[in-house]
Amino acid sequence: MPCWVDGQPGESLPVVDRGLAYGDGLFETIAVRRGRPLLLERHLARLAEGCIRLAIPGDLALIRSELLAFSAELGEGVAKLLLTRGDGRRGYAVSQPLQPRRILLGSPPPQYPPAHAEQGVRLHPCRTRLAEQPLLAGLKHLNRLEQVLARAEWQDAEHAEGLMRDLSGRVIEGVFSNLFLVRDGRLLTADLCRCGVAGVMRAEILDLAERMGIPVQVRDIALAELLAADEVFLCNSLYGIWPVRGFEGHGWPVGTLTRKLQAPIRKLLDS
Amino acid sequence: MPCWVDGQPGESLPVVDRGLAYGDGLFETIAVRRGRPLLLERHLARLAEGCIRLAIPGDLALIRSELLAFSAELGEGVAKLLLTRGDGRRGYAVSQPLQPRRILLGSPPPQYPPAHAEQGVRLHPCRTRLAEQPLLAGLKHLNRLEQVLARAEWQDAEHAEGLMRDLSGRVIEGVFSNLFLVRDGRLLTADLCRCGVAGVMRAEILDLAERMGIPVQVRDIALAELLAADEVFLCNSLYGIWPVRGFEGHGWPVGTLTRKLQAPIRKLLDS
Repeated sequence: MPCWVDGQPGESLPVVDRGLAYGDGLFETIAVRRGRPLLLERHLARLAEGCIRLAIPGDLALIRSELLAFSAELGEGVAKLLLTRGDGRRGYAVSQPLQPRRILLGSPPPQYPPAHAEQGVRLHPCRTRLAEQPLLAGLKHLNRLEQVLARAEWQDAEHAEGLMRDLSGRVIEGVFSNLFLVRDGRLLTADLCRCGVAGVMRAEILDLAERMGIPVQVRDIALAELLAADEVFLCNSLYGIWPVRGFEGHGWPVGTLTRKLQAPIRKLLDS
Repeated sequence: MPCWVDGQPGESLPVVDRGLAYGDGLFETIAVRRGRPLLLERHLARLAEGCIRLAIPGDLALIRSELLAFSAELGEGVAKLLLTRGDGRRGYAVSQPLQPRRILLGSPPPQYPPAHAEQGVRLHPCRTRLAEQPLLAGLKHLNRLEQVLARAEWQDAEHAEGLMRDLSGRVIEGVFSNLFLVRDGRLLTADLCRCGVAGVMRAEILDLAERMGIPVQVRDIALAELLAADEVFLCNSLYGIWPVRGFEGHGWPVGTLTRKLQAPIRKLLDS
């Protein structure tokens, strides 16, 4: 599997990188099919927003061209891009001039059981809650201890994902997925202004729904709304859409709207 | 300056380290004088607590012996220890068996202006607020984007530190320091059950105050209490104690209790 650091083959980075010291950076996890990175523009757009909000002077044109070349070399699998603020001395202050570091890591195509997409999954109820931090909300940054703690809560294969709520109890997302509800023919997903990761597949589904004429709401979601939903599904940029069948004592059928969205998303990921 | 990775001289680490991927690890910044790490037991105790709370199987005995050997080689300066969960594949789930990684980074003694300790400092009012996350509160973990954002708020030399409040407005700490108030002969510092880093020097000062018979309270602090304080000071394990003289339109004298605590702390750091 290829691995590049700053555009060159390499598998290590300096211990003084601020990505290690402070999680001072961003990442993207990108599906690669037939040598092409899927949803590339969406990944780059989120990365660009992260660069602006964290004031990391990433060279997006260079990153785009490296991603294309890296994907061509990888062929099939997953390209993980990390962009750190670069090397630093001791201390939080940023030393000028900045030289952000680009890391590209290839891995084989993920091997999720086909049943996850076909029959749906069960959600583990994560005790780990998401802190509310508007300055970081939505970004795919490198401070991910909450997800590490949440994912460590279950080991059984019965739960394919976990439900994460914020400290106020709102329903936000999965540990590595975004979450959608369907109620009365409407699509509903959490507002990510306080916490959560604004997934690339979430954005794709929001646009797809609009094109398909499906009404969409992005707003706070109470647990009771999840439980009362007609359909529930998860999404991310690697597996597409997984229907949610169970959560604690509650169950949902795999609904028609979920299936209606799954078809074009599956096509996109197979393209 | 020496730099060790897993006990061997080295300046790089694998790009697949989870410390980089997720900030999945802990660190300690330790003053080293005459070849000895100062406040070693306190640093190790905090690290041990972090290992328990994050379920990182760190070998504390090995870390202790490496820190002693590293400090002997460094002589004078700062030893930064990073302990990550080790290498990981893609995904938040922890692959067994775990092999945590130890990194030791030496740097020269910090060059803070002597006036900071003698005449006191001004605090920048940080707009970056600390999110409330009880699962991570108190730990010196590698998810430090809030501190990076806060420290980037000011560049002028007029402010030596910044005041960080939580999202509810409580007074918590500095960006790289803990904060104490004095009111009516009592010492007061923030409860760090929701956010903040439980500094090693803060713990030393709390113990010192008890030995000196100074009443201490650890509890939530409102901004109004800061402004009404008789004395205010900052502390960390490298510089000891800095009196706070100014914050926005407010000013404090360098008080007698601050001076009373500064003397033994200075002695400790010079030992």
